[in-house]
Amino acid sequence: MSAVFTHRFKVRDYECDMQGVVNNSVYQNYLEHARHEYLLSKGVSFAEWTAADIHLVVVRAELDYLKPLMSGDGFDVTVRVVKEGRLRLVFQQDIIRLADGVTVVKARIVGTALKANKRPYFPDALNALVEQA
Amino acid sequence: MSAVFTHRFKVRDYECDMQGVVNNSVYQNYLEHARHEYLLSKGVSFAEWTAADIHLVVVRAELDYLKPLMSGDGFDVTVRVVKEGRLRLVFQQDIIRLADGVTVVKARIVGTALKANKRPYFPDALNALVEQA
Amino acid sequence: MSAVFTHRFKVRDYECDMQGVVNNSVYQNYLEHARHEYLLSKGVSFAEWTAADIHLVVVRAELDYLKPLMSGDGFDVTVRVVKEGRLRLVFQQDIIRLADGVTVVKARIVGTALKANKRPYFPDALNALVEQA
Amino acid sequence: MSAVFTHRFKVRDYECDMQGVVNNSVYQNYLEHARHEYLLSKGVSFAEWTAADIHLVVVRAELDYLKPLMSGDGFDVTVRVVKEGRLRLVFQQDIIRLADGVTVVKARIVGTALKANKRPYFPDALNALVEQA
Repeated sequence: MSAVFTHRFKVRDYECDMQGVVNNSVYQNYLEHARHEYLLSKGVSFAEWTAADIHLVVVRAELDYLKPLMSGDGFDVTVRVVKEGRLRLVFQQDIIRLADGVTVVKARIVGTALKANKRPYFPDALNALVEQA
Repeated sequence: MSAVFTHRFKVRDYECDMQGVVNNSVYQNYLEHARHEYLLSKGVSFAEWTAADIHLVVVRAELDYLKPLMSGDGFDVTVRVVKEGRLRLVFQQDIIRLADGVTVVKARIVGTALKANKRPYFPDALNALVEQA
Repeated sequence: MSAVFTHRFKVRDYECDMQGVVNNSVYQNYLEHARHEYLLSKGVSFAEWTAADIHLVVVRAELDYLKPLMSGDGFDVTVRVVKEGRLRLVFQQDIIRLADGVTVVKARIVGTALKANKRPYFPDALNALVEQA
Repeated sequence: MSAVFTHRFKVRDYECDMQGVVNNSVYQNYLEHARHEYLLSKGVSFAEWTAADIHLVVVRAELDYLKPLMSGDGFDVTVRVVKEGRLRLVFQQDIIRLADGVTVVKARIVGTALKANKRPYFPDALNALVEQA
């Protein structure tokens, strides 16, 4: 398993819905951005790979919503990576509220890579992520 | 288990990301809107309940991304409901592409209701959903 | 000026913010989707043009927010097109609430097309839009 | 006119659309977040005001899209405020790309406040913004 990578965020008001809390779908935005920042920190650019027709895709997402985030809350999103089988990476991600250190969302995101022909494969650069961990 | 409710959608271009497909987080928007339309069809208005300080919340989401939706794709989102324990509803939801009938996302969304004091409870109107099913 | 094209929508709860009304930025999503449906009705696919490296872009947007839309509101978005200069199209768009026929947003969106080299140009297919109007 | 307030951002990949650039509607999110951070810096919390039934609303938005932002771009959003008439604030906002200091969007956002009864009014706290400027 990789070391823990952390990216810091702050809730923006437009991310909150009529309940006055961050909408459920927005947490997937946070988790994705933290994963892409993690990949960048390892030299993998999601945008460059997309332009080169290598598509990093999510095949399964599991999210446990433990507490809501609200306007102005600061929070960290963590990223840990582990390989599953020959072709998949599992990202274990927590969203942790800064004010009290409480984990507000726990997520398990399973991803793979697809070539232009839509076939799954596993680029060496992704193996490096797991090995260097 | 309830009968199947279905709501029809069409992909909008702003929902697609740089990969040219619907972004992962957007499927949660589709699933939520279909659930809220389902609730409305049973006389339960998410907006009115929110205004009355009864908060319908998601506590867990599981999504299997099987195929991507693309610009202009028509699709149906189904909703089936089953009670789990005393306080939870499980929404089993499929996203089905109209062009070929293929299921592109399968989801299991677990929800409950919270009073203004943040305590979980289970309003009679929700029981009615499951019983009338 | 072109004839009026209209696309019908319904507010989705996730589009509302903590004020309980549709967030300001979301109206641009509605306006864009109506424009793209209009273009499709004329045989112009934004997605296919993008894939072919012809980029339809907005260079200026003006929106007057007259009334808010709320959860469940049905509404129409109109599209009228007029050419401005050699290289620009102006989309005059209204958002009209179905319940009472009130115009809730008036918008003027100025667009052009860019080639892969980022130079503005004006494809014949866009001229056809204005001429056939 | 007030002194210039600046808030720093970085483009997130989910904010980009199929053209590979930030979607037009997302700039309104950036502008709104910068305004709310500006208000917070002056002691005005959009969320607290909303909870107290004082609604800060946008009545007109003008945006000039000069250049697109792309994946990973860092940028600053500026906020300058000037009063217009008895009841309106005008926010003059620029979005400036960090890499080269180029202004990519220029915006003029006109806002006011509404009481619970939907009547416009102008709370003293907003006057203070302009006077202290």
